[in-house]
Amino acid sequence: MKWQDVHELPCSIARALSVIGDRWTSLIVRDAFLGVRRFEQFQQSLDISRHRLADRLERLVEEGVLERREYQSNPPRFEYRLTDKGKDLYPVILALLQWGDKWMAGESGPTVRHRHRNCGHITRPRYVCSECGEPISARDMEPLLASDVSRASSTPEAEVERHHRSASSKMRSPRA
Amino acid sequence: MKWQDVHELPCSIARALSVIGDRWTSLIVRDAFLGVRRFEQFQQSLDISRHRLADRLERLVEEGVLERREYQSNPPRFEYRLTDKGKDLYPVILALLQWGDKWMAGESGPTVRHRHRNCGHITRPRYVCSECGEPISARDMEPLLASDVSRASSTPEAEVERHHRSASSKMRSPRA
Repeated sequence: MKWQDVHELPCSIARALSVIGDRWTSLIVRDAFLGVRRFEQFQQSLDISRHRLADRLERLVEEGVLERREYQSNPPRFEYRLTDKGKDLYPVILALLQWGDKWMAGESGPTVRHRHRNCGHITRPRYVCSECGEPISARDMEPLLASDVSRASSTPEAEVERHHRSASSKMRSPRA
Repeated sequence: MKWQDVHELPCSIARALSVIGDRWTSLIVRDAFLGVRRFEQFQQSLDISRHRLADRLERLVEEGVLERREYQSNPPRFEYRLTDKGKDLYPVILALLQWGDKWMAGESGPTVRHRHRNCGHITRPRYVCSECGEPISARDMEPLLASDVSRASSTPEAEVERHHRSASSKMRSPRA
């Protein structure tokens, strides 16, 4: 299979990697989260060729991850801003950061920490289940075909179960 | 800068990408989480050349992400299992999956859902702050140099603050 065919696979991971699976692309996205916006700043930060950087930026704009905006008209100058689709990549960057901190940081440890502005504390974010709030590990996750899930959710038992969940988790009164 | 120099950067994201920033490598790790262990299974799943697959597997073993184990001695046959370092990549895979589900799944929607075995519900895991439990977004995260954090945490004020946090969050009695 050629790389360009991977985005045809019915797998969201493969499709995501067809956009940001390139290492330089991921580093451009990291820089965008750190506030880098202009071509020269990206080039200075990454120290890659102008040609390669232009190619990666163009692709990210095509994919709707970055938006190219004119910030000066005479002469025209452009900057690159994360779109909503781009901002949604933050968990990917965060997951890479945490893994790198734990396994690749060397003896001196991680160089960067993060403070959660909302609570003011140094934070080590973690993935939790949206339903029970407990931390998630690979072992706890059972993949199911989405088609099976929607079939299952239309059985009477599932209907009752959903009804109860909706009533208890959202504190609404039960529907008739 | 050459790609091989990136892992020298004092950035955990860059270092992480120096190991799994290759797209095929990420797909191999995805497959490993799905239970794929043998060379032929990986090849069938990914449909890449034996040479390229062997190269990526060797690199993942060198980096300590996969472990090569003999499962049959005559003739010798090997399989590839995730190490603890490899299992810790699950949040990266999960983050890619969720982004792909949201932005790349097409009209028919995601093909796979996940049930959280611990609570039995279909889950949409999310990143939360380790300290306050609230969901994390890029905007809420303030990067700080680790050296500044450790300096700050040795001031009397920080000592008092840490003391209170330790006492309240871990329910230990305050130290003298």
